Amino acid sequence: MSEFVNVAVDGMGGDHAPYEIVKGAVEAVNENSHVKVFLTGQADKIDSELAKYTYNKEQIEVVNTTEIIEMAEPPVMAIRKKKDSSLVKALNLVKEGSCDAFVSAGSTGATLVGGQVIVGRIKGVERPPLAPLIPTATGCSLLIDCGANVDARPSHLVQFAKMGSVYMESVMGVKSPKVAIVNIGAEEEKGNALVKETFPLLKNCPDIHFIGSIEARDIPAGLADVVVCEAFVGNVILKMYEGVGSILIKKVKEGMMTSLRSKIGALLVKPALKKTLKAFDLEQYGGAPLLGLNGLVVKTHGSSKAIEIKNSILQCITFTEQNINQKIKEKITMEEN
Amino acid sequence: MSEFVNVAVDGMGGDHAPYEIVKGAVEAVNENSHVKVFLTGQADKIDSELAKYTYNKEQIEVVNTTEIIEMAEPPVMAIRKKKDSSLVKALNLVKEGSCDAFVSAGSTGATLVGGQVIVGRIKGVERPPLAPLIPTATGCSLLIDCGANVDARPSHLVQFAKMGSVYMESVMGVKSPKVAIVNIGAEEEKGNALVKETFPLLKNCPDIHFIGSIEARDIPAGLADVVVCEAFVGNVILKMYEGVGSILIKKVKEGMMTSLRSKIGALLVKPALKKTLKAFDLEQYGGAPLLGLNGLVVKTHGSSKAIEIKNSILQCITFTEQNINQKIKEKITMEEN
Repeated sequence: MSEFVNVAVDGMGGDHAPYEIVKGAVEAVNENSHVKVFLTGQADKIDSELAKYTYNKEQIEVVNTTEIIEMAEPPVMAIRKKKDSSLVKALNLVKEGSCDAFVSAGSTGATLVGGQVIVGRIKGVERPPLAPLIPTATGCSLLIDCGANVDARPSHLVQFAKMGSVYMESVMGVKSPKVAIVNIGAEEEKGNALVKETFPLLKNCPDIHFIGSIEARDIPAGLADVVVCEAFVGNVILKMYEGVGSILIKKVKEGMMTSLRSKIGALLVKPALKKTLKAFDLEQYGGAPLLGLNGLVVKTHGSSKAIEIKNSILQCITFTEQNINQKIKEKITMEEN
Repeated sequence: MSEFVNVAVDGMGGDHAPYEIVKGAVEAVNENSHVKVFLTGQADKIDSELAKYTYNKEQIEVVNTTEIIEMAEPPVMAIRKKKDSSLVKALNLVKEGSCDAFVSAGSTGATLVGGQVIVGRIKGVERPPLAPLIPTATGCSLLIDCGANVDARPSHLVQFAKMGSVYMESVMGVKSPKVAIVNIGAEEEKGNALVKETFPLLKNCPDIHFIGSIEARDIPAGLADVVVCEAFVGNVILKMYEGVGSILIKKVKEGMMTSLRSKIGALLVKPALKKTLKAFDLEQYGGAPLLGLNGLVVKTHGSSKAIEIKNSILQCITFTEQNINQKIKEKITMEEN
């Protein structure tokens, strides 16, 4: 209907709201003339931020709200009670079809719950997984699911594999993406009850390229494009990336400061090192999509700066233009036949 | 009875057997006069390795066996069929009381199964966990369980917490070790069914120092001394250490080779960096104990060199002298009252 891809953005969510959020929105519309951003939040605050920039006024609209959902609030209650919050309002814009997508740097819990409760699931989707891109030695992989829904069933994991395949193929351009299930060994008979039940289902799934089990050690090496696991394990994998990465980089820095010789070396090495390590930074990939909803919901880090907000908004364009949800719907329905 | 701590070592297990195994045994007895090593395996091969070294002949005894369990063999079958293998023989030495401990660089599956089936569990212990030490920013933590028994119950995790506390206190000298359960958030209401059920049990456990949930991100930072989880999650954590670590170090090296300037810097930085990163190398800690058995079973990496074999053997001395199994027995029984 609209000539734009319409993206709702929670103007009050995140550690650096509204400053970095507004800046990111402006950068997005200045980079792409096909996107319109609906910034939800306290209009006076957002307007005074917007006043600092030059941009096409047709591409940003402020939607005034009076309430704010805090990071620590119990999600279900917050969604139900705070109807006039920036988050609930943005989700409703997607629900009623005014917007195609929603980008949130606010409370993860409220975003996930709100996505399911307000926007709603695609018919046939049992659980909407949160699927961040993670850096690997060869590029990046999709880790699916890292969401809030633990204790998944085998049928959920099969749907994750399908939705992840659609995403990697259509958004990231990976032809016939390799799908693997996280396991404690490469052999088919290994695993816990969930993995053992899921393995044959994935193996017999005709519309994905299943390559078998992947040990956690091989995830950073990039052996699979779509890494399927239940949310508890996914969360552990994602946070081990952050944890091991930051400690190792700290150790490298400490190591370089131990002698005069190494200090001089550090000065010479620093610029090159910074550039390489950036390629291995989780945050460069911007937001993680919550797949399987009637509209796209993208969760970015609470600490997101303008660049991540911009990338998350632009990601919504590819997602919408590629008609990902239609493709997911087709793949999920195929299973039911 | 014996003046020695008697340690059985599988002379044929591991990628570098018997060469590195025999070398490690010799180094251990040359470093400590209170240990006697029983090397199981093909006597001719082991003897010809031993002939290369000088050591106190009273401290090493070769126990001839004719069969070998391969890395890929199904463990239960291998243990049952190959009675005259170096692994089964060594386990029997512990079972019959001739040895206090067993060190294996061979098949993990066969070692874990054999430990339970042949050596047997301490009365009251429901499951023997495999508990490797992992490097952290502040020293090291015990990750318990990384074994082959998945789908654990809450009562298992409580016992892991107790056994891990005994180990960290008595072997590593950590006073009142901090115990945490791996979770996807710090709040008590977070988690999957297993964690939610286990949390209050740990909280009400009087004889451990429980500090609550730990997110995977905080494990490498060293926020807990005893990191409790079920084996599937433990395996993922351990292997993410290896995976993220090796990729990051590869990236650092690549980064240093991108320009002439950085190449010169790399030469200056290298020795200092090597030393610091060594402190973060999983392998330096040698073997992981399989706790809760009637005797100690230590599993070291299949790729173990002499230094790891030596460290694993020496670790058995502390374990035996500190009477860990008696302490575990007391702590587990306390629960039953």
